[in-house]
Amino acid sequence: MSTNKTFTLAVVPGDGIGPEVTTEALKVLDAVAAQHGVTFERTEYDLGARRWHATGETLPDAELESIRGHDAILLGAIGDPTVPSGTLERGLLLKLRFTLDHYVNLRPSKIYPSVGSPLANPGEVDFVVVREGTEGPYVGNGGALRVGTPAEIATEVSVNTAYGVERVVRDAFARAQARPRKKLTLVHKNNVLVYAGHLWKRTVDAVAKEFPEITVDYLHVDAATIFLVTDPARFDVIVTDNLFGDIITDLAAAISGGIGLAASANINPDRTAPSMFEPVHGSAPDIAGQQKADPTAAILSAALLCDHLGLTEAAAAIEAAVTADIEERTGAARTTAEIGDAIAKRALG
Amino acid sequence: MSTNKTFTLAVVPGDGIGPEVTTEALKVLDAVAAQHGVTFERTEYDLGARRWHATGETLPDAELESIRGHDAILLGAIGDPTVPSGTLERGLLLKLRFTLDHYVNLRPSKIYPSVGSPLANPGEVDFVVVREGTEGPYVGNGGALRVGTPAEIATEVSVNTAYGVERVVRDAFARAQARPRKKLTLVHKNNVLVYAGHLWKRTVDAVAKEFPEITVDYLHVDAATIFLVTDPARFDVIVTDNLFGDIITDLAAAISGGIGLAASANINPDRTAPSMFEPVHGSAPDIAGQQKADPTAAILSAALLCDHLGLTEAAAAIEAAVTADIEERTGAARTTAEIGDAIAKRALG
Ligand SMILES: CC(C)[C@H](C(=O)O)[C@@H](O)C(=O)O
Ligand SMILES: CC(C)[C@H](C(=O)O)[C@@H](O)C(=O)O
Repeated sequence: MSTNKTFTLAVVPGDGIGPEVTTEALKVLDAVAAQHGVTFERTEYDLGARRWHATGETLPDAELESIRGHDAILLGAIGDPTVPSGTLERGLLLKLRFTLDHYVNLRPSKIYPSVGSPLANPGEVDFVVVREGTEGPYVGNGGALRVGTPAEIATEVSVNTAYGVERVVRDAFARAQARPRKKLTLVHKNNVLVYAGHLWKRTVDAVAKEFPEITVDYLHVDAATIFLVTDPARFDVIVTDNLFGDIITDLAAAISGGIGLAASANINPDRTAPSMFEPVHGSAPDIAGQQKADPTAAILSAALLCDHLGLTEAAAAIEAAVTADIEERTGAARTTAEIGDAIAKRALG
Repeated sequence: MSTNKTFTLAVVPGDGIGPEVTTEALKVLDAVAAQHGVTFERTEYDLGARRWHATGETLPDAELESIRGHDAILLGAIGDPTVPSGTLERGLLLKLRFTLDHYVNLRPSKIYPSVGSPLANPGEVDFVVVREGTEGPYVGNGGALRVGTPAEIATEVSVNTAYGVERVVRDAFARAQARPRKKLTLVHKNNVLVYAGHLWKRTVDAVAKEFPEITVDYLHVDAATIFLVTDPARFDVIVTDNLFGDIITDLAAAISGGIGLAASANINPDRTAPSMFEPVHGSAPDIAGQQKADPTAAILSAALLCDHLGLTEAAAAIEAAVTADIEERTGAARTTAEIGDAIAKRALG
């Protein structure tokens, strides 16, 4: 291929290990770009804890609009213990996801035989969680009264709409349809959260009629965590709400080789705004700046980015390079940059 | 001991495997009762799916008041696929927990060496989750508009009060103080659910000042699920909200010998109403009525019941009998009644 196409990337390295893993993801992207005849033109945004301490800003409107002008966003990690919890998460990360309408938060889980799992007998794990990204308990529609007094009351409102649920459920069915096992599991808690839960259940039942080949089942979120450790191989596509998706994808990452390998894509399927690609892991401030972080999740997120931009071969090259690297891991410690170098080299073929 | 004291028990066998496991729990209770000079006077309540189909009732006020007149409640399991999801859970189980102010939902997890775990290297697991039982997303303060139309909106409101959070946090600290490791972990999601999460965090920080010996830490719920599979031995006492507690206690049960062993106590520590004891597992309709269910969780819940009533020796006898039974499990299939018989016999000494 030599299309010589240029893609613009907004890069938000963020906090903690974010900058280190982002550097490696960009290294790998550049390696495959050259080979697949594309160029990634990058704009880096200084957002996160440092910026907040310096200016009090999390994501000014002008920068949000500037980011919006790109083809895709690559993000490292957001969150820092020196900033009040929630400030950067709500004011930056979730603001991006919500404003850019990233309603499909895609998180694949796969067990690489050589990596091992904390599970004794994980079986063949290869599933993807389609986590709703713009509704649910994440909307920020809460409040508090009489804060700091014995009469304090704090609420959090989960907002769920037919509009929001149907579009992500359709996306999940389409993904299940494209996979060999053609299975979809709805995860919710409709025996307690009856209003939201029944909306989700009714929507899945309705859309299922259009996908007669798909086997559909339902699990309460508590039961889903059990199966994720006793029989994770049963899952193919999971569709779930924003909060349940957050919880089960960390668990899914933990059972399948660890959070160091878990990639994610915040997708706007309608392409009315750029999609955003980031590792599932957090900013891990305890190991930040020490070249101890595994950049693989960030690199795999870059593969998802290529895929989203239609660079199927580049995506496959990155994934193959990661798989090869993982399969030859000996347990010997490597720096973040060494892992990035090794994968970039392999991606070049 | 020969106090010859009589305790009144309200028994709600419920749905699915509930009646079978409850029969065994009562068998074991009667066995130890005789030996410890107490009598359990039982009133059985026909509540659950059968009753709802027959009369449309879940928990009439008169029966709730009758149940309230007892010293303790023993419950099997609630929920049935022939009844709209949520009807029995909200109308019966949660109605009992909320009306009788069961604000401490206690769920111990322990790995018995002989039982094994889906984890390859679980380590020494012995922790207890103190799950809040009367607030959070479980309050039922949701609603839906334009149901069944493309404009449907469904909300769920999580309600959290200083009153409700402080009392359960105090209970958790007192439990941590009584344990050798003296460690307490708050699990929440205060980087997203900032109003509720900060109330929880501030409350734990404030109460911690009165317990200088306790080591306190905080984990987001997603990170907590990771540690529950990578390093569950790190936990001692976990305190968390109603929904997060639901999720992580199923996971905790799964990693420590399975849901067949997980007991729970719904405690009203102020003793203004009877506390309720039930296995963590659900009604498992797929195996109901087949003598396939493991009654151990129900039996261990009966031990928690004895403990709550001050029958410390009876509780210890049941626990010892269960431990002995578990340690000699060979993997050969036994009926529900056979397991109950074996444990009852051992409990007699
Ligand atoms: C950092 C945090 C706000 C975020 C989330 O809860 O979505 C993270 O846990 C994730 O899963 O991407
Ligand atoms: C049956 C259901 C309502 C209940 C809950 O969610 O609390 C159960 O899962 C439990 O953990 O006791």
